[in-house]
Amino acid sequence: MSNSEEKLLSLIGQITGLDEAAKQEAIKRQAKLAKPPGSLGLLEDISIQLAGITGKVQNEVDKTRIYVLAADNGVCEEGVSSAPISVTRAQAINLTRGLTGASSLAKHFGDEVVVVDMGIALPYTCDAILKHSIGKGTRNLYKEPAMTREQAVTALLTGIELATQAKEDGVKILGVGEMGIGNTTTSAAVLAALTGARVSEVTGRGGGITDAAFAKKKKVIKTAIKNLKPDKNDPIDVVSKVGGYDICAMAGVYLGAAINRLPVVIDGFISIVAALVAERMCIDAREYMIASHLSFELGFKIAAMELEIKPYLSLGMRLGEGSGCPIAFRVVESACAVMNDMATFEEAAINDEYLDVIRGKDSFTV
Amino acid sequence: MSNSEEKLLSLIGQITGLDEAAKQEAIKRQAKLAKPPGSLGLLEDISIQLAGITGKVQNEVDKTRIYVLAADNGVCEEGVSSAPISVTRAQAINLTRGLTGASSLAKHFGDEVVVVDMGIALPYTCDAILKHSIGKGTRNLYKEPAMTREQAVTALLTGIELATQAKEDGVKILGVGEMGIGNTTTSAAVLAALTGARVSEVTGRGGGITDAAFAKKKKVIKTAIKNLKPDKNDPIDVVSKVGGYDICAMAGVYLGAAINRLPVVIDGFISIVAALVAERMCIDAREYMIASHLSFELGFKIAAMELEIKPYLSLGMRLGEGSGCPIAFRVVESACAVMNDMATFEEAAINDEYLDVIRGKDSFTV
Repeated sequence: MSNSEEKLLSLIGQITGLDEAAKQEAIKRQAKLAKPPGSLGLLEDISIQLAGITGKVQNEVDKTRIYVLAADNGVCEEGVSSAPISVTRAQAINLTRGLTGASSLAKHFGDEVVVVDMGIALPYTCDAILKHSIGKGTRNLYKEPAMTREQAVTALLTGIELATQAKEDGVKILGVGEMGIGNTTTSAAVLAALTGARVSEVTGRGGGITDAAFAKKKKVIKTAIKNLKPDKNDPIDVVSKVGGYDICAMAGVYLGAAINRLPVVIDGFISIVAALVAERMCIDAREYMIASHLSFELGFKIAAMELEIKPYLSLGMRLGEGSGCPIAFRVVESACAVMNDMATFEEAAINDEYLDVIRGKDSFTV
Repeated sequence: MSNSEEKLLSLIGQITGLDEAAKQEAIKRQAKLAKPPGSLGLLEDISIQLAGITGKVQNEVDKTRIYVLAADNGVCEEGVSSAPISVTRAQAINLTRGLTGASSLAKHFGDEVVVVDMGIALPYTCDAILKHSIGKGTRNLYKEPAMTREQAVTALLTGIELATQAKEDGVKILGVGEMGIGNTTTSAAVLAALTGARVSEVTGRGGGITDAAFAKKKKVIKTAIKNLKPDKNDPIDVVSKVGGYDICAMAGVYLGAAINRLPVVIDGFISIVAALVAERMCIDAREYMIASHLSFELGFKIAAMELEIKPYLSLGMRLGEGSGCPIAFRVVESACAVMNDMATFEEAAINDEYLDVIRGKDSFTV
């Protein structure tokens, strides 16, 4: 095992489960708030999860950051995408300017967007993009492994460092997005390889492709899995053979969030596949993840089932870029507002008769 | 027909459908934005609806207001609720103080909450509550009509006036909430009467009640409909016999929003039943409504199907008070941000090859 892989395993070894005592305190406080028990649903659940993550019952998520990992994919030479690879470069730059879907939303709400070059293929000049490029795009997984194991490890370590930097910067919650033409192909391949799901169940049309390109996309993924034999019990083997630099770094951000006890929001299809990679590397990392929207992209539901994550936004979105994160951050903010600002029954001066019912002296079911 | 009912019909007669030319302009602009067509899903749909409502392609919803209509229900003397009627009064006051579920969320996001007394039963002192009380709670619909037809018309007119006041105050979007112990009973009765749905399909446990109280609740609703014979073709007859002052005024706010060309967000079960009452009084009023969350309360889905409204937030919430509106306002804000701030393909400097694909020269399906 390489030194860097040893370092990676050592970092992952720092991840622990949630703070159960803080979760119990949060559950107790929710029961005291002036509302029928459970009537705020997921807002209650998220507030309890946050308590477990931070160790505090009351939390704020007033400093937010979305990491957008950008990289190109060699498999694009097979014609699996509707857009040319120049779009990765163009949109990575536009993301830093608040001009894309995700970044216009982030800008509106004051969420920071940090674009990270993990392997943009074409040359560009843009100081606002963080440079962690591992190569000018991966190799073509239809013909050979997308990258070396060492490259995958480096990308994973980069993701962890990004999360650690966020913690140092005082960020309270992270979102994980991406920009990379061809990455619904790599994500579908990783998902199929990790789970054994049928390629036809996990492969969608991405940005929108012709019937012929869609057939080719599935053939490419099937062939890659057949020839490269990614080992489902070794997530690094899977992502290095059929993944991308973006997916590796995204998985690293999820792991880094767990190491640093930061909540982290999942965006769309590529984002949830990277989350699954992180969960396969460390099952406790799952506890730090918060769902957002149900991506329209085929395969999302299978990844969500594997992670036992329930998206709560049904917006019919399939843009990626972290575009689901800004709205999800507002939902997490809502969970915090309820926990921090709602009155308890005593504070609300609701009379004893009701308290007796709520407290279960007159038992009732919901 | 009374003078006030004539006035009501005349006001409703002012409602027209959406501005089709503005909608078409909005659709054109969405097609120019740098993203795969349709990839922002509901955010695109909402931006197009807003254009139809206001007549402008670019909109802001930077001034928001939630009307919370508060009233008591005579049917509570049958033991259909888990909470005593004193909770209506206590929570109406707490709503003005940012202490309840809905108002803590609204306060966090800077949404104005205006609580309106349409018929709180018990005495109180609270200057922040608008006084439009029609009576100290309705009569018991298990025994007699909840109110007179004239009272229902007065409450509807009050709701319209509230929406008109909002427009004068520069409000850009409204939300409709309520506070009234017993109002899942009245809402279920109105929904069953308007649609012919089975009482068992539309009656839930509200704030949480015993099995015995739940059985009684259904019996009360069935009996009221059988004895009072609300006429499904006359929504005012329905709401006056088996509704409440809150539901009538809420329906009025929806109608007033349409009269004043304001978008209006539906909250939970009582809110959507009131929306259905408004739609039955004027089918074009539907065009001004925006869904929010899928309430956990039984019956919500039937009302949503009747209105052909698709909730997009699955938060497991069933609190009422307008608690779904603050998060929904953020989704509508998101729709505005995309329309106002995203770059077009030209602005994004995405190259011609991609433009050709997006513009359909190389046909593709999503």
